[in-house]
Amino acid sequence: MQVLQIPLSRTNLNTPRHLQLCLPGDLAGLAHQVIGRCDQAASFTEEPGKITRTFLSQPMRGLHEQLTTWMHGAGMTVHLDAAGNLIGRYAGSDANHPVLLIGSHLDSVPDAGKYDGVLGVLLGVAAVQALGGRRLPFGIDVIAFSEEEGVRFRAPFLGSRAICGQFDFGLLNRLDAHGISMSEAFRDFGLDAERIAEAAYPIGRIGGYLEGHIEQGPVLDDLGVSVGVVTAIAGQSKLWMEFRGRAGHSGTLPMAGRRDALAAAAELVLEIERLALETPELRATVGALSVEPGAVNVVPGAARLCVDVRHAHDEIRTAAVAQIHDRALRLAARRAVELKLVEEEHHRAVPADPHFRTVLGAAVTATGQPLHQLPSGAGHDAAVLASVAPWAMLFVRSPGGVSHSPDERVFEGDVQVALDIVVRFLEMLAGAGPFANGDSRSSDCLGAS
Amino acid sequence: MQVLQIPLSRTNLNTPRHLQLCLPGDLAGLAHQVIGRCDQAASFTEEPGKITRTFLSQPMRGLHEQLTTWMHGAGMTVHLDAAGNLIGRYAGSDANHPVLLIGSHLDSVPDAGKYDGVLGVLLGVAAVQALGGRRLPFGIDVIAFSEEEGVRFRAPFLGSRAICGQFDFGLLNRLDAHGISMSEAFRDFGLDAERIAEAAYPIGRIGGYLEGHIEQGPVLDDLGVSVGVVTAIAGQSKLWMEFRGRAGHSGTLPMAGRRDALAAAAELVLEIERLALETPELRATVGALSVEPGAVNVVPGAARLCVDVRHAHDEIRTAAVAQIHDRALRLAARRAVELKLVEEEHHRAVPADPHFRTVLGAAVTATGQPLHQLPSGAGHDAAVLASVAPWAMLFVRSPGGVSHSPDERVFEGDVQVALDIVVRFLEMLAGAGPFANGDSRSSDCLGAS
Repeated sequence: MQVLQIPLSRTNLNTPRHLQLCLPGDLAGLAHQVIGRCDQAASFTEEPGKITRTFLSQPMRGLHEQLTTWMHGAGMTVHLDAAGNLIGRYAGSDANHPVLLIGSHLDSVPDAGKYDGVLGVLLGVAAVQALGGRRLPFGIDVIAFSEEEGVRFRAPFLGSRAICGQFDFGLLNRLDAHGISMSEAFRDFGLDAERIAEAAYPIGRIGGYLEGHIEQGPVLDDLGVSVGVVTAIAGQSKLWMEFRGRAGHSGTLPMAGRRDALAAAAELVLEIERLALETPELRATVGALSVEPGAVNVVPGAARLCVDVRHAHDEIRTAAVAQIHDRALRLAARRAVELKLVEEEHHRAVPADPHFRTVLGAAVTATGQPLHQLPSGAGHDAAVLASVAPWAMLFVRSPGGVSHSPDERVFEGDVQVALDIVVRFLEMLAGAGPFANGDSRSSDCLGAS
Repeated sequence: MQVLQIPLSRTNLNTPRHLQLCLPGDLAGLAHQVIGRCDQAASFTEEPGKITRTFLSQPMRGLHEQLTTWMHGAGMTVHLDAAGNLIGRYAGSDANHPVLLIGSHLDSVPDAGKYDGVLGVLLGVAAVQALGGRRLPFGIDVIAFSEEEGVRFRAPFLGSRAICGQFDFGLLNRLDAHGISMSEAFRDFGLDAERIAEAAYPIGRIGGYLEGHIEQGPVLDDLGVSVGVVTAIAGQSKLWMEFRGRAGHSGTLPMAGRRDALAAAAELVLEIERLALETPELRATVGALSVEPGAVNVVPGAARLCVDVRHAHDEIRTAAVAQIHDRALRLAARRAVELKLVEEEHHRAVPADPHFRTVLGAAVTATGQPLHQLPSGAGHDAAVLASVAPWAMLFVRSPGGVSHSPDERVFEGDVQVALDIVVRFLEMLAGAGPFANGDSRSSDCLGAS
């Protein structure tokens, strides 16, 4: 895999000769603009009064038009790829040099917040704006992925997978909730699903990937820090389990000898909670549970549940999954109910590239911010890009840890810090190149916006 | 309340002068016929291949026609009352004497068994057949209630409530699943809802009520006995509770500090199970539980559940409900989730009439069967009749304790025992009257069938 040539040294990371391209005041203005643009982006929605913007929806087209204007203003050429990703291209001084991708996704969950995904895209645009027209040795593609959340077609990462040549063409016949196939959705958006393969970057063309994203949890907020550097995308296991006992009349079936499937499931829910509380950094959750027949006066004959287990270290996750399975088997045997592992799904953890992560950490430190590093419990496009390029990811504090909710917020000051870090990261990647000379003109920082 | 005049004495109950009207061989024939008729009744169904027969449905009309033939064959006059109850009348020697009602219901749950309800009605018909035309001092009305299960209009005991002058006319506008109002359902069945009040028996006319019913649990089967005498219809409390915690991303929300509504609900499910196991004869069940938002990757923000608590002694049930509420409050406080008691419903236990119960017990003993007495965890029409007349109830063993299921079965031998007991019960009620002389002619036992 060909990667960005990074003239990385202790000196590069620590000396003050890596000056900011923009003065703090200008970064403040850009951060303010990013917040305003997140507000504007929120108006492109399928549901009035809410933010819902799914893959290839009409509001997505509107946001593309708006984003194109912003990207042009930052000095980028813009194109829509065959997978519906909008890409703003900012050429480097060396056209043959692999490019740095900076981005995130534009699609949302239903009734979403303003920042999840959008913030990372607009941070990329703002960082290019902050360059004020200066060229780095490498080009920058600010990429707005068409799909990450998996909402419309129950399959996530469609945009980044296409970019990485991993699009699953078997999905093209899948229908959305309105009975529209993915192929039709592409056509309705003015795209040709037959050409999705063209969205893949040439091998070696992607030199690295940087994603800024609002943290989807309360860790940074609890610590009182603005940003965090992601160590890894946590590995994840999903276990769909079913207990089958014996249904019966709740008034007539004596307690002794009952084979209550819900009671078995309840015991497992608590066992899982206990295991997760005992295991540092493990997250284990039963988010879905249903009962059959589910009538007030019937002892449950079946209970289905789904367990979600995550950890940044695969061996800890795997051991936890084994524990959960073992405890489920034991309690099922004790309660004389049947246990069925209906389906399971396992994804390995994806560690950040050590080099990129070190540079990003150095950029954080250079701003004077404390360096906090944390795993990402949620999946991100970065986990897909990881298969083709080194990557790093910057989390921005989410006050209250709110995620996938209209209550999601960010502090403008944190956005400024994040932007500062992204710009410093670019400088550091560019090393002793043209961006280390401190001759930035603040008047250009806001570009044409 | 005027009741049957029962010449009840030790002598009446124990002396062998109360001979059977039918010889054992004849009872065997009648029992065989009852089983065959249950099979025939099963063919009147709304769902081919299943037994589903709801209030005022077309198959109910078909069964009424069939049952009318059987009742006529047993020497009864037959009429349909204004509430859709089919009544076979077998006059007594004293027309002014309050009548004894023997019956059960003809409606069923969806995909029901053959015996729940129907068996009790056909036992009544068979008992009258066994009288072979002889008159008791009191008349017998074999009553086939139109509605007991509460399926079609989500309100149970419609038939027996009408008989007892307790029909809730506010229900007439209620719609079934097809949008048909109860008034329309009456009209479609050829009845006039305006006249339902006419179904009520005159005050004092009902001298007593006897119901035979398949046990809806495994108690008799576990004991290896054919029948049981019901001590009481258990009191029942239903508690709809809701825990509200904080939803969050299952991958990003640290375990410590979570406010997982499902974990709280799971803890309560187990507390309830523990309490019920510790409290003799208490039944406490969580039959329904739902989670919000119920997504695999979201920590549950809300969990709703319904608790069903039953006991034959109201003070034990009430104490258990208080315990459950108390434990729910404690665990909610410990877990920092909110607890809401959304709705509650309480029904007092209905004890069987001591006199009737004693007579029925004596009839059991007279057959040489062991006398087992047990509360009924399920509700029955008897609980409604209890408000106007003394009642007793005989349970027939359900192999495996199956109920509300096509797998429901009865042993023909148990039906014979039950029939023997009902006939002896009639004899004992009639005391030293014309039925104690042992001059029954076996040739008449099967009547005109």
